[in-house]
Amino acid sequence: MISPLDRRTGLPVVAMVGGGQLSRMTHQAAIALGQSLRVLATDPAESAALVAADVQLGDHRDLAALQRLAEGATVVTFDHEHVPTEHLQALEDAGHRVAPGPAALVHAQDKLVLREALAAAGEPQPAWARAATVDDVETFAAEHGWPVVLKTPRGGYDGRGVFVVDGPEDAADLLARHGTLLVEQRVVMRRELAAQVARSPYGQVAVWPVVETVQRDGVCNEVLVPAPGLSDDRATAAQELAVRIADRLGVVGMLAVELFETADGVLVNELAMRPHNSGHWTIEGSRTSQFEQHLRAVLDYPLGATAMTVPVVVMANILGGAATEPGWDGPALDERMHHLMAHWPDVKLHWYGKGQRPGRKLGHVTALGEQLEEVRARAVAAARYLADGVVDPAFAFRHDHEHPGSSA
Amino acid sequence: MISPLDRRTGLPVVAMVGGGQLSRMTHQAAIALGQSLRVLATDPAESAALVAADVQLGDHRDLAALQRLAEGATVVTFDHEHVPTEHLQALEDAGHRVAPGPAALVHAQDKLVLREALAAAGEPQPAWARAATVDDVETFAAEHGWPVVLKTPRGGYDGRGVFVVDGPEDAADLLARHGTLLVEQRVVMRRELAAQVARSPYGQVAVWPVVETVQRDGVCNEVLVPAPGLSDDRATAAQELAVRIADRLGVVGMLAVELFETADGVLVNELAMRPHNSGHWTIEGSRTSQFEQHLRAVLDYPLGATAMTVPVVVMANILGGAATEPGWDGPALDERMHHLMAHWPDVKLHWYGKGQRPGRKLGHVTALGEQLEEVRARAVAAARYLADGVVDPAFAFRHDHEHPGSSA
Repeated sequence: MISPLDRRTGLPVVAMVGGGQLSRMTHQAAIALGQSLRVLATDPAESAALVAADVQLGDHRDLAALQRLAEGATVVTFDHEHVPTEHLQALEDAGHRVAPGPAALVHAQDKLVLREALAAAGEPQPAWARAATVDDVETFAAEHGWPVVLKTPRGGYDGRGVFVVDGPEDAADLLARHGTLLVEQRVVMRRELAAQVARSPYGQVAVWPVVETVQRDGVCNEVLVPAPGLSDDRATAAQELAVRIADRLGVVGMLAVELFETADGVLVNELAMRPHNSGHWTIEGSRTSQFEQHLRAVLDYPLGATAMTVPVVVMANILGGAATEPGWDGPALDERMHHLMAHWPDVKLHWYGKGQRPGRKLGHVTALGEQLEEVRARAVAAARYLADGVVDPAFAFRHDHEHPGSSA
Repeated sequence: MISPLDRRTGLPVVAMVGGGQLSRMTHQAAIALGQSLRVLATDPAESAALVAADVQLGDHRDLAALQRLAEGATVVTFDHEHVPTEHLQALEDAGHRVAPGPAALVHAQDKLVLREALAAAGEPQPAWARAATVDDVETFAAEHGWPVVLKTPRGGYDGRGVFVVDGPEDAADLLARHGTLLVEQRVVMRRELAAQVARSPYGQVAVWPVVETVQRDGVCNEVLVPAPGLSDDRATAAQELAVRIADRLGVVGMLAVELFETADGVLVNELAMRPHNSGHWTIEGSRTSQFEQHLRAVLDYPLGATAMTVPVVVMANILGGAATEPGWDGPALDERMHHLMAHWPDVKLHWYGKGQRPGRKLGHVTALGEQLEEVRARAVAAARYLADGVVDPAFAFRHDHEHPGSSA
């Protein structure tokens, strides 16, 4: 049995570290399960803190704050990877349930630890080495060629902490600034994919269709579901890979395996052990969303069905664009929302309630349908309109019929 | 333009009177639109108060509490009909937006006012009369026959305030207790239907398929979507009726028109001007849920698409049953949820977080699919298991294969 349970509702209390949009959307899912997500936020204006009833303010690097959060909660989970591993260990040692546990989560926190674990498991990944000195980088480049990719083992996300380096001078500079780095070959890839799986402590797993993630400047921009043109064999292989990794690392909750697709197959790029941008499409596009599934998994509830609700889904991120620049004099956010709803009554909007800043992930839209090209055009145009205030000509109001009575 | 907007998010703030499950599910929908529902609850343990960030405690009959709620909100709306009409008028007079407005809402609050309005509009309804005395009832019964149905004009819901009366003695008793009543003929009906429509101040309307509502003891138990065997003509007529009523009464927000289907057509039973139990299926079963649509409508946003996401949807209420009786020694709620999820991984659960009491609406489940009989069996069995702790034999684990090595 799960414990402790909330005295009033008789149901579990999930505590999530982090007050961002993942936490916000997990709270939405918790409501349906009779729960109310407990959120640790650093600021009352954070995305989840604006909508959740049970919010604690504190820093995820502060053990005392984490202990307060865990008190009376059934399980502690995360909307990011930035909690120090030793704090998670301390929570476990004090008898709190932490999901995923620190021994699993470290593989999403530290890219060198991940590379070592995947090598030990014989799973496909880019050629890599630990680089403490410029010599290490040059030795690696002598085998795999320049440019190489240097990555900070910890703390990077959305393209941050990833550097494409053409020669030893730049490498020296990065090593001086960041210390030991991960060096990887620059993979010649067709595209990026992601495979999501949920795993419960009991060991039950549930997978979704493999998706294509379309990146721009290292940030996920669109997710195409299912990944177009991916062979059944390769899709199944990617799902099996995700399940093997989840099992081997003992993941509890959602796992996103980010993949490079090459001519020969897939290589593991990195892992996220939480709801992930590549799974936002599941809110409307799958019978069970990744947010509900994450709650089910960390609570050791049986997992929900993951069948798609339509043949094709496209999710497009709304990244702060021209309409969030200082001096923007086009329609304000609320007015843009009016126009979005009028243009695209069937596009589903998810706005995160954040302050508008250029480049920031402010929300996403999901379009559903039968045919990829049409669905994708709809999603991208809607997201772009909110971000940039620009209407794609394909969706502009048309006045191409003659005025009655005019001469042709 | 809409105003006022929240200073931090640049988006509207909808305030809802009432902290029940309708408010809870409206908050869920508000989160996706970048909003956070402001809730007026009477108790911090109410369904919506447990999950919303912006909760005010107060009584819906207290004008001062309503004024505090309206302060800084873009619009005030309702999860029930029990706010005194004069208080709503006072809010409007003070410059607050109230949706639906008091002039519309009174038709959902007062059954006599509704009957008069429908009569003036020539819309189909049961024969009726105002009954201040036993004579009035006897005159009506002389024309339409006993038994008659007596209804308190205000305050009834879920079968409360509705009395089937066989003769003048019982009528006298009810008149003495309740004052003036509405008397109606007892309609010989095939079944009950509901037609839902959303209407914005601009006048845009959106309709959903007409549904069948299956009642037990005056309480909605199941909703079948679309209403099985309803002819296209009759379905269209019911939708048009709902749109005419919404227009004529100036409804803003969701309108549910509860209907009796007879051999000849439909008759209006009563109205609800808010999200309604007959529309819970829309959360998964329609591209836009009634909760999101209510928010869009009261904010004068363009309305969302109402296409069904699957051919057949059945919603079943979870009404507190054997498992909520004192002395219940079967599996506790959290354990029943485990079993429900294991048995029905594709049934969607909505639990309202309320204390468990016999007869109380504690939650609902939604099943989706292709074929009514199968979908309905799934929904009803899942709801019944949570309410009563009883597994429908059709869904019990089976051990009907021989033990390996046993003789046949």
